[in-house]
Amino acid sequence: MTLQLGVIGAGAIGKEHIRRCTHTLQGATVVAVSDINADSVRAAIAFSGINAEACSDAHDVIKASYVDAVLVTSWDPTHEEYVLAAIAAGKPVFCEKPLAVTAEGCRRIVDAEMNAGKRLVQVGFMRPYDEGYQALKKTIDSGEIGMPLMMHCAHRNPEVGENYTTDMAITNTLIHELDALRWLLNDDYRSVQVRFPRSTSATHARLKDPQIVMLETQSGTLIDVEIFVNCRYGYDIQCEVVGEHGIARLPEPASVQLRTAARLSTSILTDWKDRFIKAYDTELQNFINDVKTGQLQGPSAWDGYAASVAADACLKAQETGETIQITLPQRPAFYPR
Amino acid sequence: MTLQLGVIGAGAIGKEHIRRCTHTLQGATVVAVSDINADSVRAAIAFSGINAEACSDAHDVIKASYVDAVLVTSWDPTHEEYVLAAIAAGKPVFCEKPLAVTAEGCRRIVDAEMNAGKRLVQVGFMRPYDEGYQALKKTIDSGEIGMPLMMHCAHRNPEVGENYTTDMAITNTLIHELDALRWLLNDDYRSVQVRFPRSTSATHARLKDPQIVMLETQSGTLIDVEIFVNCRYGYDIQCEVVGEHGIARLPEPASVQLRTAARLSTSILTDWKDRFIKAYDTELQNFINDVKTGQLQGPSAWDGYAASVAADACLKAQETGETIQITLPQRPAFYPR
Amino acid sequence: MTLQLGVIGAGAIGKEHIRRCTHTLQGATVVAVSDINADSVRAAIAFSGINAEACSDAHDVIKASYVDAVLVTSWDPTHEEYVLAAIAAGKPVFCEKPLAVTAEGCRRIVDAEMNAGKRLVQVGFMRPYDEGYQALKKTIDSGEIGMPLMMHCAHRNPEVGENYTTDMAITNTLIHELDALRWLLNDDYRSVQVRFPRSTSATHARLKDPQIVMLETQSGTLIDVEIFVNCRYGYDIQCEVVGEHGIARLPEPASVQLRTAARLSTSILTDWKDRFIKAYDTELQNFINDVKTGQLQGPSAWDGYAASVAADACLKAQETGETIQITLPQRPAFYPR
Amino acid sequence: MTLQLGVIGAGAIGKEHIRRCTHTLQGATVVAVSDINADSVRAAIAFSGINAEACSDAHDVIKASYVDAVLVTSWDPTHEEYVLAAIAAGKPVFCEKPLAVTAEGCRRIVDAEMNAGKRLVQVGFMRPYDEGYQALKKTIDSGEIGMPLMMHCAHRNPEVGENYTTDMAITNTLIHELDALRWLLNDDYRSVQVRFPRSTSATHARLKDPQIVMLETQSGTLIDVEIFVNCRYGYDIQCEVVGEHGIARLPEPASVQLRTAARLSTSILTDWKDRFIKAYDTELQNFINDVKTGQLQGPSAWDGYAASVAADACLKAQETGETIQITLPQRPAFYPR
Repeated sequence: MTLQLGVIGAGAIGKEHIRRCTHTLQGATVVAVSDINADSVRAAIAFSGINAEACSDAHDVIKASYVDAVLVTSWDPTHEEYVLAAIAAGKPVFCEKPLAVTAEGCRRIVDAEMNAGKRLVQVGFMRPYDEGYQALKKTIDSGEIGMPLMMHCAHRNPEVGENYTTDMAITNTLIHELDALRWLLNDDYRSVQVRFPRSTSATHARLKDPQIVMLETQSGTLIDVEIFVNCRYGYDIQCEVVGEHGIARLPEPASVQLRTAARLSTSILTDWKDRFIKAYDTELQNFINDVKTGQLQGPSAWDGYAASVAADACLKAQETGETIQITLPQRPAFYPR
Repeated sequence: MTLQLGVIGAGAIGKEHIRRCTHTLQGATVVAVSDINADSVRAAIAFSGINAEACSDAHDVIKASYVDAVLVTSWDPTHEEYVLAAIAAGKPVFCEKPLAVTAEGCRRIVDAEMNAGKRLVQVGFMRPYDEGYQALKKTIDSGEIGMPLMMHCAHRNPEVGENYTTDMAITNTLIHELDALRWLLNDDYRSVQVRFPRSTSATHARLKDPQIVMLETQSGTLIDVEIFVNCRYGYDIQCEVVGEHGIARLPEPASVQLRTAARLSTSILTDWKDRFIKAYDTELQNFINDVKTGQLQGPSAWDGYAASVAADACLKAQETGETIQITLPQRPAFYPR
Repeated sequence: MTLQLGVIGAGAIGKEHIRRCTHTLQGATVVAVSDINADSVRAAIAFSGINAEACSDAHDVIKASYVDAVLVTSWDPTHEEYVLAAIAAGKPVFCEKPLAVTAEGCRRIVDAEMNAGKRLVQVGFMRPYDEGYQALKKTIDSGEIGMPLMMHCAHRNPEVGENYTTDMAITNTLIHELDALRWLLNDDYRSVQVRFPRSTSATHARLKDPQIVMLETQSGTLIDVEIFVNCRYGYDIQCEVVGEHGIARLPEPASVQLRTAARLSTSILTDWKDRFIKAYDTELQNFINDVKTGQLQGPSAWDGYAASVAADACLKAQETGETIQITLPQRPAFYPR
Repeated sequence: MTLQLGVIGAGAIGKEHIRRCTHTLQGATVVAVSDINADSVRAAIAFSGINAEACSDAHDVIKASYVDAVLVTSWDPTHEEYVLAAIAAGKPVFCEKPLAVTAEGCRRIVDAEMNAGKRLVQVGFMRPYDEGYQALKKTIDSGEIGMPLMMHCAHRNPEVGENYTTDMAITNTLIHELDALRWLLNDDYRSVQVRFPRSTSATHARLKDPQIVMLETQSGTLIDVEIFVNCRYGYDIQCEVVGEHGIARLPEPASVQLRTAARLSTSILTDWKDRFIKAYDTELQNFINDVKTGQLQGPSAWDGYAASVAADACLKAQETGETIQITLPQRPAFYPR
C-alpha cells in the first residue's frame, strides 16, 4: 500500500522532498507535481527519475483522484490557499513553514481543519524530529533536572545574504525556536522582548545582527535566544535548559576528535543542511506513516498558528523596544498536546 | 523494481533483518523464509506482517525463481554451505559474520566466487557503515594526521553470559575490529600477540577478561586492542589513530550534556544494539542498492577470509603466549581495495 | 625585606588571610591584629602561630610605626573608615570587598586617594587573578574572536541560607561579575535590567531565585548573567564571550574524567572556596609584591567605586523592573586602565 | 626559622631552583652555590639577586656549617657522589633525577641512608605533586573504579634534538612514568616488553620513535605506555586507569574553549615546562617543609632505586625484543609505602 503524493512547488525544497520520497523514504511515491514554472516541474521529475504527472495548476494536483496526500513547498504567500484547498478536498497535507504568512491566515486553516472534523495538516517544523532535541525533551520530561526555570539558546549562521533584514531574524530564523521551545517545554509564550547588542561589522544597514530575544512562558520560564546570523565560525544551534536541580544541554553533533597543531578539537558544522538532514527525513517519513494509519501526530495547524502569533509579537518587540504580550486563544480540545 | 529477498535463518537476527527490509529500508521485499524451526519462520513472517513463502529447506529459498538475492542469518556452521549454494545459483548473498567457521571455508567461498567471475557475496561487517568510523576513515585518508603509526582501541561490553569463553573474545568480539581496522588503515596484518592482565573478579574460570591484543600490520602500524567484556560501566567502543603529526579519535555517540549532582556528564550506551543500529540499516540498504546496480561494494568474501585468517592467528596467540605471524595470500586482483 | 602587615578584622576571612600571609605567601609577616572581639584576635594569632601585637583599636594597627601596610577584613560597614584612615596615614591598604557600603563612600575613598597623590588602595576582587579568567582575557585581547558583542554568564551556588535575600544576589554574588566583566572587556556599564523567571521551589519568600541581569556596556556589548543561588547541583561559574568571529569560554576546572555506571563525567565543584582558592593567594601575593615595588596594580579604589555604582543601579532595576542607566563619572587620569 | 640551602650545580635546572627558592617558595634561602663552571655560579647568584657563597668545590657546600640541606642539580654522573656525601654529613638532600646513573649506584645510596638510620634523601620526581595525578590517585584509592586491571598511558613531546637516541626514551622520558605509575598503583613491576611500530619520518637513524612499552605489575596490572617524542602536535601526557567497574583518566589541563573557524577546541601545551611547573614548586616546597618537621615524605632513595631497576630492564627489553623480568629486592621496612 504505497501512498500517492502530489507535490505543489518544485523549487529547491520541493525538488529535494521529491528526491527524499523517491529514494530515501518508504511507502510513498510522488505521482503529480506542479509549479508556476513548468521547467522546474520537468527538472524535478527528471532529477528523481519518477513517472509523475506534470500539472500546470496546483489545484489539479489537489483534486486528482489518484493523489492521496499533498506536499506544499511553493512560495510562502500561496501556502494558505493550497492548504485550505487540500482540507476542502479532505486530503492530508504537509505544508512547509510558514503555514501562512499571517497569524490570521493560520487561524483560518485551524478553523477549516476543525470544521473538517479531522486532523489533515502537518507543518514542516523538523526540530521535534531531530534526535538531539528528542533526547533533550526526554531528559526534561524525565524530571531529572526538575522543573525548567530558564533556557539559554543560540541560533548562529556563518553568514546571510544582502537581502536578509532585521525582521527575517524572526520570520526565517527564530521561527524554528518559536516552535521547538514550546514543544520542549510543553508550554506557551506570555511575552517577548528584543535587545540589540552592538552589531557585528560583518552586517549591513538593514540588518541588526546579533539580537537577543527574551521570551517568557505562561508558567514563568524565561528564555534568552541569541540570534547571530553572521557569526562567521559555523552553523551552531545551542539549547540549554536550567531546571530546579540540574541543567540539560542539546548534544553537540558527533565528530572525530583531533589532536593537531596544539589544539584538541572537534568540528563545527557550517551548513545548516547538514545539521538537520536526518530530521527532514524523519518528519516526512512520519507524515507518510501517520497518513496511512489515519492519525497525524506531527506539528499541527495549531502549532503553526501559535508560532505565527509569537512571531508577530517578536516583530513588534523589535520595532518598539518594549516587552510585548503574546496572547494565544485557549487551545481547542481538537488539538491535544 | 523491488528486489525480492529470501532469508535463511529466522532467529533473532533473521527476524530483525526481515523487519528492517520490510519497514525501514527501501527497494526490497522478503518473499521467502526458511529455518530449521518452522515455528520461527511463522513467527518472523507474522512479526513483520509480510506475505512470504515459508520453506522448510534453505536450498528451496536459494533455488526459488522469484528470489533475487539471499540473506544468510542461520547458525554459524551452516553459513558456508548456503553461501556456496547461492554462488552456484548465481544469486547475490548477504551473509552474517562469520562467512565460514574456518579460514579454509572462507577460502572455498572466495575461490567459488572468483570462479563465478563476479562479486556475489557481502559479509555482514557493519562498522564500515557506521558514521563515526566513516568520519574517522575520512580523516585518516585526508592526510590531516599524517601516516598512521599506532592505534589504541577498546571493545568493552558491560557483561557477558556464562557460556562466553576466552576464545570468544576473538571470534565474537575482536572479529569486528579485525575487519574494521584493516579497512580503516587500508592495510593487512603481519602478526599478533595476546597479553592477559589480571582478570576482573566479575569473570569466571573459562574466561580470561580483559585481554590486550597487539596487532602489527604489514606496513608496521602497531595496534593495541583492549577487549573487556565484563567492564560493567557500559558498551564502549574506542578507536584512536596516532599519525605522524596528529591523532584522530572515533566520535563519542552524541548525548545530552547534564549538570547534576556535582557531575558534568554525558551518557554511555549499555546495549550494543543502540551503538550500531543505523549501521545495520545502512549496510543492508547498500547491499540492496548495490545488487540492483550490479556492483557489490561492501565487505567482500576476501574481507571475510582475511578476518578469519587473522582470528585463527589470534586464537593461537591466546593459547601459546607467542607472537604469531599472520600470513594472508596475496590479494587477488578480483578483489580491488 | 619583609613587609610588615597589620590586619583589621580577625573573623573567618581575616584569620584565613593571616594564615595565607604566614604559611603560603612570600615576603610578608603579620605583626599586628585587631578585632572588636579580643578572643578572635587571640585565636587568629594562635592559629597561625605568629608573634603579632593584639590591638583593641583598629586605628592603633593603622598608626603603628612598625606596620607597613594594612589588610581590612572587618565588618563591611567599617571598611570605609579604616581605608580612609590608612590613606591618611600614607599606608597601602588591601580592603576586602565591598570597598564601602555605598557608592558615595567609595567615592570619598577615591577622592582621598587622589588627594594623597598616590595609589594606596587595592580592593579584594580576586577573579582577575584566577588563571581561567586571565586566559579568557588573554584570548579576548589577542583579537582571536574579534570585538566582543555579547557575553553569556552564570553564577550558581548550590544553596544559600535563610538570611540571603533578593538584593544580596547583587551585593554578595553579582558584585564579582560587576568587577570582573568590566575588567575582561575593558569597558564600563551603560544600563542594567533585571528579569525574574519563575522561582525555584527551593527558595523562600524573601529571595527571588534565579534572576537574569542584563547589562549593557558603553560600547554596546550586551551581557546576560544568570544568578541562581539554590541551583543544587554545584558551584558553577560560567562566562562566555561572543565576538565578531568566534566565541571564547572560561575553562572548566580540571577534573579526572570518569567512565562509570553508564556516564562519562567530570566533577563540578560544590564549595566556592575551592574554585578561587589560588586566586586568593595570587591577589594577596601581588599586593605584597606591588607594595614593595611601590606601584599598586590590582583592582583600584576606582574599580571598587565603579562596581558599587553598578550595584546600586542593579538594585534599583530589581525594584522597578525598569532598565536603569548606570552613570559613572569620567575615569580620572589618576586611574589609568 | 629559615632553611639554609646549598645548591650543587648552577646549570639551567639549578638556576631555576635557586630562583624558585628565592622568589616563589617559603621558608628557605639559598646560601651557597657551586658548579664546575664558576661563571655559572656567578650568573645564577646574580639572576636571583641572592647573597650566597660561591664555592668551587661541591663538597665545600655540603660541609659548610651554615648549610642545612643540599640540592643536587649537577651533571647526572655526579649525583651519587654528592648524595652519599650529604648522607655522610647527616644533611637532607634533594637530588634531581636520576638518583644515580646505575641501579647499583642507587642501591649504594639506599644502603648508606639505611645505615644513617634516618631518611635524608628525596628524589626529584615531580609528578606525584601534580594536582592532576593527585586527583587520579585519589580516585583510584577511593575504590570508585574498582581494582585497577590495566593502564593506557602516553608521553608525547613535539620534538627532540638530534642527540636524543632510542635508549633515552627510557632514561629521559619513560623514567617519569616508571616512578609515577608505581606510586599511582601502589605496586611494583614484574616484567617489561618494548614494541616498535613503524617510525615516524620525523626521526633519525639512532632514534626509533614511537615506542610502546608494556609493563606488568606484581599484582598483574598490564600497562601500555606510548612514548612518542616527535609527535609534532604538542606536549601531551595521557594516563588512563581501567578498573574492574570503571575508568579514570588524568585531567586535561584547563584551557579556554574556543568556537572559531568551524572548530570547537581547547589548547594543548607544547612546552613541558608549562605542564608541571606547579608540581616543581610543590615538590620543593614540600621538601623544605618536611626537612623542617624532620620527616621526609617525598619520593625516596628506594623509589629512585626502583625506577632505576625498572629502567635497566626496559633498556634490555629494547635491545632484545624479549619480555624481561624486573626483579626488585623486597622493600625494606625502612621505606614504608
